[in-house]
Amino acid sequence: MRKIVHVFSGGLDSTVLLYDLLADGAEVQCVNFHYGSKHNHQECQRAADITNALKVPMIFMPLDIMGQFKSALLTGGEPIPSGHYQDEVMRKTVVPFRNGIMLSIACGLAESLGFDAVSYGAHSGDHAIYPDCRPSFLKAMSSAMRMGTYNGVELTAPYLFNTKGDIVKRGAELAVPFANTWTCYKGLEYHCGVCGACQERKEAFAIAGVDDYTIYKETN
Amino acid sequence: MRKIVHVFSGGLDSTVLLYDLLADGAEVQCVNFHYGSKHNHQECQRAADITNALKVPMIFMPLDIMGQFKSALLTGGEPIPSGHYQDEVMRKTVVPFRNGIMLSIACGLAESLGFDAVSYGAHSGDHAIYPDCRPSFLKAMSSAMRMGTYNGVELTAPYLFNTKGDIVKRGAELAVPFANTWTCYKGLEYHCGVCGACQERKEAFAIAGVDDYTIYKETN
Repeated sequence: MRKIVHVFSGGLDSTVLLYDLLADGAEVQCVNFHYGSKHNHQECQRAADITNALKVPMIFMPLDIMGQFKSALLTGGEPIPSGHYQDEVMRKTVVPFRNGIMLSIACGLAESLGFDAVSYGAHSGDHAIYPDCRPSFLKAMSSAMRMGTYNGVELTAPYLFNTKGDIVKRGAELAVPFANTWTCYKGLEYHCGVCGACQERKEAFAIAGVDDYTIYKETN
Repeated sequence: MRKIVHVFSGGLDSTVLLYDLLADGAEVQCVNFHYGSKHNHQECQRAADITNALKVPMIFMPLDIMGQFKSALLTGGEPIPSGHYQDEVMRKTVVPFRNGIMLSIACGLAESLGFDAVSYGAHSGDHAIYPDCRPSFLKAMSSAMRMGTYNGVELTAPYLFNTKGDIVKRGAELAVPFANTWTCYKGLEYHCGVCGACQERKEAFAIAGVDDYTIYKETN
């Protein structure tokens, strides 16, 4: 049985991947990072609800130090820009080397627990904006993790060349409770429906031909 | 002028490298990590004293989360083993993927500040025990940092193929105040002189032919 530390945000992609890992019979330890983003409180709550329901253990890792980095995604940063997820304006929402930091910590945790691998839900739509979601980064990071640990911890990102539409399709097959996942960057009571992340979520359901029960409400 | 985020522990190697970077005319931002090791309080104090004297800015980063990892180096772990630094028994002092985690955070900080590079004082004597000090790890990590950032943050570890004796020689040329640096893993009032790290420190001065003014006292 594979033992996997899963970087789990409570978002749609990492939730589908969690269901996929469990369907595959893996032993999973989730890790959720609180790095000061505007939607972290929503994500953390969803992540806790989902892992509780699945009886999968989860560790919360506070990363307050990243509050010192500049990004519109972070509390204290500029407002979240509206626009499509793949637009240049979304560059403001990049948290510098966020995935490198999260994967490194997950790798240390996996090595400490004697686990085989770290899993992570990056997909092809992330490549355009986020350098630390690109295949070249993940290939190098995977090598760093394998070389930098006694156990040779592996990095697995099985959706790297899939679209978010593909992930929704897979989630529907696995009966993932999509309405319990969080995507919106604004972190208000409901998904705003207009930020780049919400637009991408809506499109993914439409492309997959799966009903979207998310409640979208544009509020301030 | 190169702008460099320097991973600075307050130990001998990273202190000599700090002097080397400044001699080279770089603009340096030091970052010191408090990850819960038994000697962290001694290291942090030395790091603060040295950067204050040099008027180099330093950021302290608490990494309490790593206290959840198992290692004899950490508070709450097994006692520090005695023995030579390169012995197999020193494996107990490995903090899982510690350098991967520190370098990732330093990389995010460099990207956030618009700096060019991250520097780091790993040397050839570290390779034997610590997988995350080996050239293969650093090469992959360097690639991950470059690929995972917009600015293409570089990783520089100029002592990677030098011995600690070489570093002491270089430090003597740069008039580094060695007595202000901390090496001992036990973190007591004085260097213990018997842990692997102390033995390696003593040997480095002897090999370099440089007087060692460190006070060694074996206490409990």
